[in-house]
Amino acid sequence: MNIDMIRAAATRLQGHARRTPILTSPFLDDIAGRRLFLKAECLQHTGSFKFRGGWSAVSALGDNALKTGVIAFSSGNHAQGVALAAREHGAPAVIIMPADAPTIKIENTRALGAEVVLYDRATENRDAIGARLAQERGLVLIKPFDEPQVIAGQGTCGLEIAKDMNALGVTDADVAVCCGGGGLTSGIALALAADAPTLRVRPAEPAGFDDVTRSLASGRIERNSRMSGSICDAIITPQPGDLTFPIMQAHCGPGVVVTEDECLAAMGLAFERLKIVIEPGGAAALAAALFHPDAFAGDAIVAVATGGNVDPAVFARALDTLT
Amino acid sequence: MNIDMIRAAATRLQGHARRTPILTSPFLDDIAGRRLFLKAECLQHTGSFKFRGGWSAVSALGDNALKTGVIAFSSGNHAQGVALAAREHGAPAVIIMPADAPTIKIENTRALGAEVVLYDRATENRDAIGARLAQERGLVLIKPFDEPQVIAGQGTCGLEIAKDMNALGVTDADVAVCCGGGGLTSGIALALAADAPTLRVRPAEPAGFDDVTRSLASGRIERNSRMSGSICDAIITPQPGDLTFPIMQAHCGPGVVVTEDECLAAMGLAFERLKIVIEPGGAAALAAALFHPDAFAGDAIVAVATGGNVDPAVFARALDTLT
Repeated sequence: MNIDMIRAAATRLQGHARRTPILTSPFLDDIAGRRLFLKAECLQHTGSFKFRGGWSAVSALGDNALKTGVIAFSSGNHAQGVALAAREHGAPAVIIMPADAPTIKIENTRALGAEVVLYDRATENRDAIGARLAQERGLVLIKPFDEPQVIAGQGTCGLEIAKDMNALGVTDADVAVCCGGGGLTSGIALALAADAPTLRVRPAEPAGFDDVTRSLASGRIERNSRMSGSICDAIITPQPGDLTFPIMQAHCGPGVVVTEDECLAAMGLAFERLKIVIEPGGAAALAAALFHPDAFAGDAIVAVATGGNVDPAVFARALDTLT
Repeated sequence: MNIDMIRAAATRLQGHARRTPILTSPFLDDIAGRRLFLKAECLQHTGSFKFRGGWSAVSALGDNALKTGVIAFSSGNHAQGVALAAREHGAPAVIIMPADAPTIKIENTRALGAEVVLYDRATENRDAIGARLAQERGLVLIKPFDEPQVIAGQGTCGLEIAKDMNALGVTDADVAVCCGGGGLTSGIALALAADAPTLRVRPAEPAGFDDVTRSLASGRIERNSRMSGSICDAIITPQPGDLTFPIMQAHCGPGVVVTEDECLAAMGLAFERLKIVIEPGGAAALAAALFHPDAFAGDAIVAVATGGNVDPAVFARALDTLT
């Protein structure tokens, strides 16, 4: 993994991924106690940053692999990113999804042309299912985060943050990133180390699923004790990746842990002040910036809103925080 | 009013107004039956395009006028646009608002540093109140739409649409614009006539408040019979402006009328597919594009989502359309 792979991915994504905007509000600055820049990656194609990694990985394949097709396992956002990237490359896609993933994510993945295989998150092993299907059909497995071309694709988000912050003259800021397995976090960290080295990445995680925060603190890979039961489903993973963890160790500051209620409140404020839709897992970084200001250094903070694929009933709970 | 005023406004807005993104979704393309490009002006500062006109008008004032201050009357979005523009120029702002405007808009206008004067939309005349206050205090009145520098500011949205559609190679498309008094509609129409002359502006209005549609059909200014009772409050005005109507006559195709339920459904789909928050009046153009496809020509359509300042309770009604 290196910065050249991220720059090459940026070239492949040019004209295909959306260059998402940086949004601001004086009301949110007041709450955060510093200038707050929100990178609205929920406005990316398929509603999350995962389209970047999906496109990067699919576009790096040769013609034969594209003809045979790709396979991915995902709680939803990676699924949609890979499905759309595959469809636009004319490649078949099989997506293995947990049966308890939000309905909208399962439906969207099918509507984007992928074959969806559901499994029980509590009793079945998605890796084993993926390996078997990949072997049977000769499909190329696109892992959700611990995969160089995926990390490279997510890193293009970091190149954009570096460019925008450099243009704004922002040099003294933490960059809070909602963190699951660490693909986006490590990709952004590599991009900033190259292009905006005074900015420091800070992983944000939900309480009870803070494997990266604990791993960074202990210096070795720590696991979550459970894998379900959070509204922040998009960023729940067993543990940081073998590729992503060393990158995060080298480049990231300590993790910041937020509650589900803080994520819902951040979603409500993003609705009210920025006019964007964020899903609970995608609001962890904004929640950290708004409700844990003492955890950060600098006169500004960048928060990455990583996705917006949320069921209406959950979003209604976020609206309730405003009244 | 001419294109040079719009270009001059664009220069003054550079670095202050946000260049709002064009958003797309294959799901919305399917519903609309053609490629649909949404200009997300709800992501503009203060949550609506009105910041453009407010900044344009305030930034055109001399030092003495800035010191004395400005006054505006508005159901809300123009108020916030003028208030923030005035604050960033160090100018005092008095805003006259209807007492039944959404709470969030009144609160936001005050929080942006403006003095808010409330009036009863049914019994009091806002023009008279504005004229009296302007005279007593020597304030410069910034009218919400029938004012050249305001039209010029709104027209900058049209310059961006022209640039983006030219870059995408889109030449055969209608451009649906949520229309109140016609400031944005006429500004965009002038900009497109200069920079993308094959695109045609189509005003979109809520049923019962279709003064522009009827005026364009009859060839003379027609009035609405009532001024309240719509969730599309942001685009309810008595009649098209004396300045804006001739411009719309010269450059716009027929108006398209949508129902409130169609606006709520469009808001729901924008939540689900684009991850943005649109207010009812700001969803009229998207509703027209999605639910009245036969009203439009061309293999593509641009819909301008003009604002996102909506109370949570109204937004919850939009979410209900998805279930």
